[in-house]
Amino acid sequence: MTMQEAMMNEHPPVRTDADELVQGIEKGDVRALARSISLLENESPRALAILSALYRYVGRAYRIGITGPPGAGKSTLLNKLVMEIRKEHHAVGILAVDPSSPFTGGALLGDRIRMNDSVQDGHVYMRSMATRGSLGGLARTTAQAADLLDAFGKDYVVVETVGVGQIELDVASAVDTTIVVLVPESGGSIQAMKAGIMEIADILVINKADRPGAGELEDEILQILEMKPRDERPTPVLLVSAREGKGIEALWAAIKHHREMLAAEGIRELRRKSQIRSAITNHVLERTRSFIERNEEMGRMVESLSLEVLENRCDPFRAASLILKKLGIS
Amino acid sequence: MTMQEAMMNEHPPVRTDADELVQGIEKGDVRALARSISLLENESPRALAILSALYRYVGRAYRIGITGPPGAGKSTLLNKLVMEIRKEHHAVGILAVDPSSPFTGGALLGDRIRMNDSVQDGHVYMRSMATRGSLGGLARTTAQAADLLDAFGKDYVVVETVGVGQIELDVASAVDTTIVVLVPESGGSIQAMKAGIMEIADILVINKADRPGAGELEDEILQILEMKPRDERPTPVLLVSAREGKGIEALWAAIKHHREMLAAEGIRELRRKSQIRSAITNHVLERTRSFIERNEEMGRMVESLSLEVLENRCDPFRAASLILKKLGIS
Repeated sequence: MTMQEAMMNEHPPVRTDADELVQGIEKGDVRALARSISLLENESPRALAILSALYRYVGRAYRIGITGPPGAGKSTLLNKLVMEIRKEHHAVGILAVDPSSPFTGGALLGDRIRMNDSVQDGHVYMRSMATRGSLGGLARTTAQAADLLDAFGKDYVVVETVGVGQIELDVASAVDTTIVVLVPESGGSIQAMKAGIMEIADILVINKADRPGAGELEDEILQILEMKPRDERPTPVLLVSAREGKGIEALWAAIKHHREMLAAEGIRELRRKSQIRSAITNHVLERTRSFIERNEEMGRMVESLSLEVLENRCDPFRAASLILKKLGIS
Repeated sequence: MTMQEAMMNEHPPVRTDADELVQGIEKGDVRALARSISLLENESPRALAILSALYRYVGRAYRIGITGPPGAGKSTLLNKLVMEIRKEHHAVGILAVDPSSPFTGGALLGDRIRMNDSVQDGHVYMRSMATRGSLGGLARTTAQAADLLDAFGKDYVVVETVGVGQIELDVASAVDTTIVVLVPESGGSIQAMKAGIMEIADILVINKADRPGAGELEDEILQILEMKPRDERPTPVLLVSAREGKGIEALWAAIKHHREMLAAEGIRELRRKSQIRSAITNHVLERTRSFIERNEEMGRMVESLSLEVLENRCDPFRAASLILKKLGIS
């Protein structure tokens, strides 16, 4: 994304029609893609219209997640991995998810820090994702942005998340292969378990593997992984030095191997179906929420019930039952 | 919580009736409280019945959140703060939120690490919280557990969260005073902004303030805080050495001062009303979700629509519209 594009994302100069953006994306116009993702971030209803129109192209791109604690060298690893993918001439979309402040626009900061020339060519699109609208929508928006990149024609979509929170778990459930990156400094097994990301790893990378402690970390990880049930497939643990480019080919090979396994066992289709089921249900709930918030009669009802709860004349559960009854759901 | 209690939480020896637990909590029985929170964690319908019956006692306890990056000394600070609160003979409930693995039971690990004898007396109840059921429910379960502690008669409920994720933002919106703890080692301003927690801080604590770099961190924080709009109240920044007990009295004074301001400006009641509104809406959506998932006819509809989407004959948004139409919501 150029600076100019970034500014246009922030302040769209014209109110572009959803149909125009759909046609733009169909023609491969990167600016239409960028604006559509901005609309998603802003939770604009137009974004869903665009996604709906393009959904028939969704399902082809292979999705890779990269997560791990801050300082694990994820961005460097991402750059090198994308260069490796580019050797095979695949088109790549990158989403760098920034779960930081919804108030100060963490994504712009993220853009500045994470942008790296090495991955910027005509076939690579990189974008930082942050919450601008409601809290809690980031994982959903990211999954939808991945759908857009998929529809745009990217062969691979790589989603990078920072941190150890809920968002990583949610993103992991929306990608095909999840790579967890740890470094010798990220400490012992307790740290890794607390990160809560050992179980979501399809591939474990020990980055900065030339540093002291890499062997010990590997031993600890292997010990933890032994606790996995026997019938589950073993998680590969790879020693990588992303900065020196060591181990990147092996990582790419491991991703492709994982992809083949998922395909052979029919798991990818099962996962995709369950992702679609979640997407449908979540969308139903989202629209139910906005119905409750925007419908005048419902608004009055919620308001008066809230007051009753505040005055201890009702409780939220009874209030919810009354609303569900009104909605006709029981 | 004793080891015995912990075991009973894990494997309740008898299937206690919700009414019995309600009566137990009304009588001040800590075991009834512990079991009810376990039911909440397990997302048992009985837990909501208990909370519903006790809701008329909710709204009295003052809620304090403590958050910050791992290694910031939050547990030590929490212990010292609770000792300070105990000097005034208030009853305290503590919830240590562990957003780690929903698979390996991070809470038990958390218990072992965080438990500290100094805060264990008859008037202090401490409990670790982790997700056992669905992902994403941790913030809601924590808010409900705080309600239970409130109904139980605790004067203060302190919620400790680890990390820099969404959960901190969600928890912050459910407490009255949010304390963000940073340490000189947590690095410069970018790190702090990325943590995304500067904006949610009602009080900022620089812990381990005897270490080198504390002054620089204070300067950076004050610079960032200057970007706050002028009409917002200034965020106090306190230098603390929790281990040595330095600055704890000032922190307690700052909390009480913040509480007085919230009361004087009527903000606490406004916040509480908005929390109640969210609780009602979320409960409506949760029950709508379970209706969609459990109702046979709805289940068949979602299943067949998912298949249509998978085969690119429909998209999730159109599918959602059809379901909303069936539900009678539009």
